[in-house]
Amino acid sequence: MRALITGAAGLVGSFLAKKLIEQGARVFCVDDLSLGSLRHLEDISTRDGFDFAKVDVSQSGWHEPLKHSGFDLMVHLAANSDISLSHKFPETDYSRTLKTTFETLVAARALKVKNFMFSSSSAVYGAEPAFPTPETSPAMHPVSIYGAAKLASESFISAFVENYAVNAWVYRFGNVVGEKLTHGVIYDFIRRLIHEPTKLSVLGNGAQNKTYIDVEDCVEGMLCGFEKSPAGKSHKQRFQIFNLSTTGSTTVKEIAEEASRRITNGHAKIEYQSSDVGWVGDVPKTSLSVEKILSLGWRPRYDSTPAVFRAIQTHYDWTQKN
Amino acid sequence: MRALITGAAGLVGSFLAKKLIEQGARVFCVDDLSLGSLRHLEDISTRDGFDFAKVDVSQSGWHEPLKHSGFDLMVHLAANSDISLSHKFPETDYSRTLKTTFETLVAARALKVKNFMFSSSSAVYGAEPAFPTPETSPAMHPVSIYGAAKLASESFISAFVENYAVNAWVYRFGNVVGEKLTHGVIYDFIRRLIHEPTKLSVLGNGAQNKTYIDVEDCVEGMLCGFEKSPAGKSHKQRFQIFNLSTTGSTTVKEIAEEASRRITNGHAKIEYQSSDVGWVGDVPKTSLSVEKILSLGWRPRYDSTPAVFRAIQTHYDWTQKN
Repeated sequence: MRALITGAAGLVGSFLAKKLIEQGARVFCVDDLSLGSLRHLEDISTRDGFDFAKVDVSQSGWHEPLKHSGFDLMVHLAANSDISLSHKFPETDYSRTLKTTFETLVAARALKVKNFMFSSSSAVYGAEPAFPTPETSPAMHPVSIYGAAKLASESFISAFVENYAVNAWVYRFGNVVGEKLTHGVIYDFIRRLIHEPTKLSVLGNGAQNKTYIDVEDCVEGMLCGFEKSPAGKSHKQRFQIFNLSTTGSTTVKEIAEEASRRITNGHAKIEYQSSDVGWVGDVPKTSLSVEKILSLGWRPRYDSTPAVFRAIQTHYDWTQKN
Repeated sequence: MRALITGAAGLVGSFLAKKLIEQGARVFCVDDLSLGSLRHLEDISTRDGFDFAKVDVSQSGWHEPLKHSGFDLMVHLAANSDISLSHKFPETDYSRTLKTTFETLVAARALKVKNFMFSSSSAVYGAEPAFPTPETSPAMHPVSIYGAAKLASESFISAFVENYAVNAWVYRFGNVVGEKLTHGVIYDFIRRLIHEPTKLSVLGNGAQNKTYIDVEDCVEGMLCGFEKSPAGKSHKQRFQIFNLSTTGSTTVKEIAEEASRRITNGHAKIEYQSSDVGWVGDVPKTSLSVEKILSLGWRPRYDSTPAVFRAIQTHYDWTQKN
């Protein structure tokens, strides 16, 4: 198999690239390195089947040099993954989370790639879905610009499936965590505690309660959906959506306390605010129904809190080494 | 009241501008005149409170000359309204149906406009919704690029409501018809019958069955939602969605026969194809639940087929005069 991965130097992309190479695939990695890092790809950079190009996939025509590559699969992960910034700079998510998707779909059409995988988000469900939220949740009204850009991306993928004979697997991720984090609450807390070990100011009241998933479990879930749920004939069988997370959840308070324990032996004073959201557009609770992906036989090794605690350790170790 | 209308030289925009001026509002009309026409605004062009500027609202910063205008309401209607072209040119809908929305939202934020109205479409519901389709339909997966761009637009409006204190009224239109048509099946049939009165080739088998609404009823529905359902405090009360059409529906065959009768005295031979859709991404049946807008007291004067027959007559007369 020959796969192209956008955002390949990020947390999910770098692990997926490694996994595919271990399975014998040839993997063409692209990333603009604005959030991802070449260090994330270092361990596979000399492996057979690995290729990398620095590309900004929000630019139209980015695929033109790849005209004769014959990819079987495109995995589109490139996005502005820092949700909290989107309130200040909505243009960032418009261009980096949505336009990247549109231009990658245009690329898939032009390169005649049959299979398309996409990293969507629980943020598409908006503020008040039922918990745990199923893939068929009605009235999805995103409250973050990030969530809007993800739902907008899904809409175009759906239409491209109908118009241009593409098959799609859309994964609505919980919070994906692991060693090579590039953003998010664990990433922030670790950096702030290294810089200032005596205190940690938390955005919001700490009660925000979200579902986390380990990056290795996440990548195995993505490949499980692709392998065990092949495309059928109807639009519904060719545009498949899976929630992808654990059944558990973890509060910001638990994350802050564990980060303080690991990095400062618990000496940091943790300060909370009164707001129940961390930023404008934050969704204070996420809980995804993952019955659909579980029904294919996938099982995560780590539940939400063990995945978070493991990421605090491995990402902290990573920052010390790099 | 001071309102800005994008796409103001189109079918809905020109009638809405007229209606608002009759109610005493000041109306700033913008249009890039790619589909709309200044002729559509001729009858109000000398009225007090009317203003027009040729503007392409897909360009970022288009609102900058309007910094001190103090609009109370922005009505965003500018879009590529020709669905059937989107299969061939998906970039058109991306830039003209979605980017226009994003840049108009950016304008609303910058100009501190509190109220935002948007013309969405039944195309957001995708291929297989329940009939009549309610606003809360689950699993909305558009099959046309046009529908994707409309759903993507709604997603960003939802997020802007949460982030920037905008109140939104989103109307998912059936097929809006009237004298000043700029596209669509009636527009096409009339032009083709004038050019070639002996035959009419129809895209698809003629059984496509969709819901139509007269433009005057449509505009009154929009204003009814705005007046009778003011914004509340929660996101749900500030991001309001209404289906807006009639309860009836009309087949392509009925439209073809009536157009032939009016324009060629029924002499045109009507030729159908075998396909049940007119083009890739066409949805062969639309039927909207309009209980929500009816509950506010709005009543359309024309049901679907009378609205279509009226538009065939008035638009034909319009083409003969212009």
